[in-house]
Amino acid sequence: MIVVMRAGCQKPDVDRVVHLVREMGLKDHVIVGTERTVVALIGDDRAKDKSKLEACPGVDRVVDILAPYKIASRQTHPEPSVIPLGGALNPKVGGKQVCMMAGPCSIENRSMLMEIAHAVKEAGATCLRGGAFKPRTNPYEFQGLGEKGLEMLAEAGEETGLPVCTEVMSIDQVLVVAKYADVLQIGTRNMHNFNLLMAVGKTDKPVLLKRGWSATLNEFLLAAEYIIQSGNPNVILCERGIRTHEDHVRNTLPLATVPAVKRESHLPIVVDPAHGTGRAYMVPSMARAAIAAGADGIMVEVHCDPQHAWTDGAQSLTLDAFAQMMRECRAVAEAVGREL
Amino acid sequence: MIVVMRAGCQKPDVDRVVHLVREMGLKDHVIVGTERTVVALIGDDRAKDKSKLEACPGVDRVVDILAPYKIASRQTHPEPSVIPLGGALNPKVGGKQVCMMAGPCSIENRSMLMEIAHAVKEAGATCLRGGAFKPRTNPYEFQGLGEKGLEMLAEAGEETGLPVCTEVMSIDQVLVVAKYADVLQIGTRNMHNFNLLMAVGKTDKPVLLKRGWSATLNEFLLAAEYIIQSGNPNVILCERGIRTHEDHVRNTLPLATVPAVKRESHLPIVVDPAHGTGRAYMVPSMARAAIAAGADGIMVEVHCDPQHAWTDGAQSLTLDAFAQMMRECRAVAEAVGREL
Amino acid sequence: MIVVMRAGCQKPDVDRVVHLVREMGLKDHVIVGTERTVVALIGDDRAKDKSKLEACPGVDRVVDILAPYKIASRQTHPEPSVIPLGGALNPKVGGKQVCMMAGPCSIENRSMLMEIAHAVKEAGATCLRGGAFKPRTNPYEFQGLGEKGLEMLAEAGEETGLPVCTEVMSIDQVLVVAKYADVLQIGTRNMHNFNLLMAVGKTDKPVLLKRGWSATLNEFLLAAEYIIQSGNPNVILCERGIRTHEDHVRNTLPLATVPAVKRESHLPIVVDPAHGTGRAYMVPSMARAAIAAGADGIMVEVHCDPQHAWTDGAQSLTLDAFAQMMRECRAVAEAVGREL
Amino acid sequence: MIVVMRAGCQKPDVDRVVHLVREMGLKDHVIVGTERTVVALIGDDRAKDKSKLEACPGVDRVVDILAPYKIASRQTHPEPSVIPLGGALNPKVGGKQVCMMAGPCSIENRSMLMEIAHAVKEAGATCLRGGAFKPRTNPYEFQGLGEKGLEMLAEAGEETGLPVCTEVMSIDQVLVVAKYADVLQIGTRNMHNFNLLMAVGKTDKPVLLKRGWSATLNEFLLAAEYIIQSGNPNVILCERGIRTHEDHVRNTLPLATVPAVKRESHLPIVVDPAHGTGRAYMVPSMARAAIAAGADGIMVEVHCDPQHAWTDGAQSLTLDAFAQMMRECRAVAEAVGREL
Repeated sequence: MIVVMRAGCQKPDVDRVVHLVREMGLKDHVIVGTERTVVALIGDDRAKDKSKLEACPGVDRVVDILAPYKIASRQTHPEPSVIPLGGALNPKVGGKQVCMMAGPCSIENRSMLMEIAHAVKEAGATCLRGGAFKPRTNPYEFQGLGEKGLEMLAEAGEETGLPVCTEVMSIDQVLVVAKYADVLQIGTRNMHNFNLLMAVGKTDKPVLLKRGWSATLNEFLLAAEYIIQSGNPNVILCERGIRTHEDHVRNTLPLATVPAVKRESHLPIVVDPAHGTGRAYMVPSMARAAIAAGADGIMVEVHCDPQHAWTDGAQSLTLDAFAQMMRECRAVAEAVGREL
Repeated sequence: MIVVMRAGCQKPDVDRVVHLVREMGLKDHVIVGTERTVVALIGDDRAKDKSKLEACPGVDRVVDILAPYKIASRQTHPEPSVIPLGGALNPKVGGKQVCMMAGPCSIENRSMLMEIAHAVKEAGATCLRGGAFKPRTNPYEFQGLGEKGLEMLAEAGEETGLPVCTEVMSIDQVLVVAKYADVLQIGTRNMHNFNLLMAVGKTDKPVLLKRGWSATLNEFLLAAEYIIQSGNPNVILCERGIRTHEDHVRNTLPLATVPAVKRESHLPIVVDPAHGTGRAYMVPSMARAAIAAGADGIMVEVHCDPQHAWTDGAQSLTLDAFAQMMRECRAVAEAVGREL
Repeated sequence: MIVVMRAGCQKPDVDRVVHLVREMGLKDHVIVGTERTVVALIGDDRAKDKSKLEACPGVDRVVDILAPYKIASRQTHPEPSVIPLGGALNPKVGGKQVCMMAGPCSIENRSMLMEIAHAVKEAGATCLRGGAFKPRTNPYEFQGLGEKGLEMLAEAGEETGLPVCTEVMSIDQVLVVAKYADVLQIGTRNMHNFNLLMAVGKTDKPVLLKRGWSATLNEFLLAAEYIIQSGNPNVILCERGIRTHEDHVRNTLPLATVPAVKRESHLPIVVDPAHGTGRAYMVPSMARAAIAAGADGIMVEVHCDPQHAWTDGAQSLTLDAFAQMMRECRAVAEAVGREL
Repeated sequence: MIVVMRAGCQKPDVDRVVHLVREMGLKDHVIVGTERTVVALIGDDRAKDKSKLEACPGVDRVVDILAPYKIASRQTHPEPSVIPLGGALNPKVGGKQVCMMAGPCSIENRSMLMEIAHAVKEAGATCLRGGAFKPRTNPYEFQGLGEKGLEMLAEAGEETGLPVCTEVMSIDQVLVVAKYADVLQIGTRNMHNFNLLMAVGKTDKPVLLKRGWSATLNEFLLAAEYIIQSGNPNVILCERGIRTHEDHVRNTLPLATVPAVKRESHLPIVVDPAHGTGRAYMVPSMARAAIAAGADGIMVEVHCDPQHAWTDGAQSLTLDAFAQMMRECRAVAEAVGREL
C-alpha cells in the first residue's frame, strides 16, 4: 500500500502513520514530494486492514499496490488452468477447445429436458446446463423443481454423455447438488456469499463462479480465491453482465473482462450472453464476440418453446437458433485459432 | 403488464400474444395505436413470467404495471409500521423518535465493546450494533469473533439496556445469532440470498435488511416481501449506498430512497452513512441530511480508537465525534418534527 | 504520480520508466518492495501526460497523487469564496445565508413568469431562475423562447429585485445571455464543453456550473478550473444528480458531494433536487437534506400550473408547495446554524 | 405513451388525465384493471411533453411506447445506410467491407503523422484519424495543434488517398474543420451539445457521432436525429464505452450496442476499442469481438512510439501491433461473412 498524505499535513501526522505501519509489522518508506508526502509500505500487506491507515489524521487516501488475491493470480500460477468437467465425454475448459454449455433455464419436466439435451448435444454443445434450485427476485414466481429436477438432469447427463451444470444456492443444498451434478454453479447473487464459496470449496466438483452484478474484477477474483483457498482449485469464472444505466438490455456485458482475466489470472473464463443481454436476438452476436475476444466457453439458455418456458423465455434460443449459432461460433473459433 | 408490439408487427403476432395471455389465466385488452399495437393484461399478473411474452415474435418489450410486492406495499397496509427492537429499553423504529444505532464495526474484545456501549448510550444512542460474523471480501482478513463476540454483545446489551443488532451471514448462523441478538441484520451482500431471507423470516426477531449494492427499489422491497411472507412482519429497511462510477466515496448514498420508501411501503427506513460514504468526515453531514429527509433511524460505526479498529476504521467516528454528531442530529430532528 | 510496475517486471522496464520520468523534467524515486517495484515522481506533474508512463512495458498502472486542479482547490485558497449574484438585492452564495434559487423550468410567457417571480420572492427566494435556451434531448420538443425569454426574465428581475439566472448553451449565446442575466448557468450536458467554459470564463458574470451526469468529482472541479483560469473566479458549483442503475428516480442525487466539495475546494456548492430526483414529491425532503448536509443553496423549479408547464412539470413545485418547502427549509437551516 | 395511475387513485384523477390528453390533441383510451387504471394515448405523441402528465395527481408514471426518434429509425428506412467517406479511395461504411479507421490520438508534427499514415494504410486501414482540436479534462494539458494540425492531416490524406477524420469541438470550428477533413467527428463529451449537432448537420460531410459516456441508446439515436433533421443524412454511430463502476478499464465497452443499433436504426455503427478500454493490450481482442458482433468499422489509435505520444499513449497500438491486429481482424471478418 501507499499512504497519500493530505497537502499541508503536519510532521506528527506522518510520524503517526509511520508508527502504525511498524505496529502492523511492515517497513515504511517516506517520500517527501514538492506538495505532498507519501508513505510506502514494504512487505506483504494483503491481510492488513488499510482502513486503519485511512483513519489517521492527515491521511488523504491509501492506494493498494499488490493485487489482493494470490493463488488465483497468474503471477503465482503462470500456466493457464485447464479444468475437466466430468461426464462420460469429460470436456475441458481452458484449453484449445471452446466449451459450449447449453440447456434450459429451468428444468420443467423430463421430456422437455431430454429433447433439449439431445438437441444441444447434436448441435455440438459439450456441457448441459439446467436449473433445479432457482433464485427468484419475486417470491411469488416458480422456484424450481429441487431434487426431482436434479435427478432428471443427472439422467439427461447419463443419456447424452454430457457433464451437467446446475446452480447451488445455499450451504444446505451443496451435498445434494454435488450428488447429481458434475459442475456446481454459483449464481451472480451469491458471488459475495462467502460461506457458500467456502462450502463449495470443500467439494471435489468444478465450480462455475458467476460475476456479481456490481463486482469489481478484484472482488471477482477474490471470490475465486475463497473457493481455491478452501481446497478446490477447479474454478471457472463466468462473466454474465453488470448493472449499469443502460435500459435497452437487461445487463451490460463487458467483454473486456476476458482479456483482463487472461492477464491477471490462470483461471478459465466463460461468457453468458443470455443473462448478459437478456434478449434472445442479441445472444448469437455476443456469443461470437466473446469467442473472438478469447473466451474459453459460452453458456446459453436453449428451449424447445421459449414462449412457454417457465423462466427466462425472452433470452432463450430455440433449438434451431442454437444450431445456427453453433455454426457461426465455430467459424469464429477457427478464425482465432480455437476449436469448437 | 402491458405488451408493446414492434412497429410493423403482423396480426398473427398479436393473436399469439392474446392467446398466451389467455393461457396464463388473464384477460387481454388490445389497443391499436397509429404506429404500434399494445396488449394490456387485466388481472393479478405478479406471479406470471413476463419473459414468456417477451419471447413472442413481434414483441418489443413488456412493461410492468403493478408493483411486484404486495404485503410490503403501502397500498396493502396504509399505516406506517412501528417496530419495537427489544432490550430493556425497547425503543421503536418508525414512530416519532429517530432511532440511533451505533457501535463498533467488529467486536474485538469485551473491554472495548463495553466502553463503546456505555459511551454511545450516554450520547443518546438507542440501539447497539457490533459485528461477530464479518463478511470480508478478502479471505485473508479478520472474519469476526463468532459466538464469543455474540456473548459479549449480549452482555453489553444487558448492562446498558440497549437492544443489540448484529449480522447473520448464513442459514446455519440464524439460530445462534437469534439466541443472543435482539435485531438480525442482513448485510448488503445477502440482500438477494433468498434462502437466508426465508430463514430469518421464520424467527421472531426484527430484521434490519440492508439494500444490495446494485438493487433497484423494487428488488429491495421484494427482499422485504420474502421475509414478511415467511412469517416475520418486522422488517426495517436500511439504505447503505450503491455502486456507481464515483471514486471519491466508497459508495454513493442516494437519500431519495427515504421519500420513495415512505411513499411505496409501510416499512421504516434507516440510513447508514458510514458504509454509505466510507469516510468518517462525511458521516455527520450525511446523518443530518438523512434525518432531514425523513429517515426513521441512523446506523453508524463508532470506535474508541479508529486507527486501531480491526475493521472499517476509516468510516468509524470517535466517541467524541459521535457525541457531537448526536447533538447536531437532535437539532435537525426537532426542526423536522421528530425526536431523538 | 506513482508508477506501479507489474510483478515480475525486469530491470530494463524500470530503467525505461526512470528515463522517461527524467525526460519529463521530474525527479524519480524508486522503491523496491517484496513483490513489486514502484517509481514515485517528485515535482508538479499536473501538466504531464500519465498515459506515456502507462504505455511503457512492465507498467501495471499509474496513480495520481496530486489533485489535478489548483486554483479551485482549498489548499490554494483556504477561505471559502462568497459570491455576490447581482440584482438589486445582490444576495451572496457561500456565506451564512442559504441561497434559494427558484423559478420556472422554461419561460413560457410574460404573465406566468411575473406571477411565479413575485410568488417565489414573497416565499423567500433570493434568486430567480428560468430557461430561455433549452437543451432538449428530443429535437421535436420545445426549444425555448430565446432572446424574447431573456427580455422577460430581465424584466422580472428588475420588478422583483432578484438576480436572474439562466442557461447558456453555446459560445454564440454568451454575449446575449450575459446582456440580460445576472448569473450564467452551464447545464449538465455542457460541463465537459471546454470551449464554452472558457467563453463564460471571459465574462464578468458569476457562473453556476452544473455537474455532468457521469462526471467524477475531479472532473467537476477541473471544469471549474477552466472557468477560473480564463479569468472568472466566481464559480458556483451545482450538484444535480448522476446517472446510475436506479429506475425510480430520474437521477441519483449524491449529497455527499456537499461535504466533499467543502473539503477539497473553496467554491460554494448548490443542490438541485428537482433534476436530482425528477419527482416533485421528493423535492422538499431532498432540499431539506441538502441544507442539513451543508449546501450553500438550493435550486428548484416552480410553476403556477405544473400540469400545463411546457417542460419538466413532473418535477416542478406549485407555488403553495414551494412556500411550504421554504418554511421547512428555514427550520432546518437554523438547526445547522445557517439562515434562509 | 401510457399513463399508469397509482393504485387507489380517484375518478377525478383519471378524468383530469383524460382531459389533458385531449388538450394535447391526442385520443385517450382508459383501461380499468383489477388494481390499477391505465390511460393509453393514441396518436403521434413524440413532440408532447410527458412531464405534464406525470405532474397530475394520482399518476404513478408515464411509459413511452413509441421510439422517440423517427428518421434515424429502421422503421422509416428499412435498408441499412451505406455512407461514403470521401478521399481518393472513398471507402464506404455500412456495407460488406469493415472500415478500419486508424491514426494518432493527437497530430504532433508532420513527420510522425506521415509515418503513421503510410503504415496504417499499408496494414489495410481505410480511413486516417488524428486530433487537431483536443478536448482535455485538464486545462493544463496539451490542447492540440489546431488549424496547423488540420493542414498536416489533409496533406497526409492526399498523400495516402485515405479520407481523414478529425474532431470538431465547437460551432466556430465547424467551417475550418470541414475545409480540411473528410469526416467530422463529434466526441463523447459533445453528444448532448445540440447546437453543435445542428451545426454539423448543416455541412455536407459525413459525421462520426460518438456515444456520450452515460447516454442511453435512445439519447444516442436522438443525437443522430438532430444531425439528420438538420439536413445531413450521413451519420456514422460510434460506440466508445460508458462510465460504470468498473475500475480495471477506463470505460466499459458494451458491444451489445452493435446488434441493438442494427435492429433499431439504419445507421452504420463503428466501435472504438481504444477509448472503450483505455488499455492497449485489450484493444486487439475487443476489435476482433466488435467485428464478430457485426460492427461496420473499428476506430483505433496508433502511434510509432506510444511512450512518447503526447496524448493517450496507454491505449495506442504500435505500428507492429496494429499490423498484427489487422491480420487477426481480417480472419474474423471473413468468418462472419464480411471483408476487411
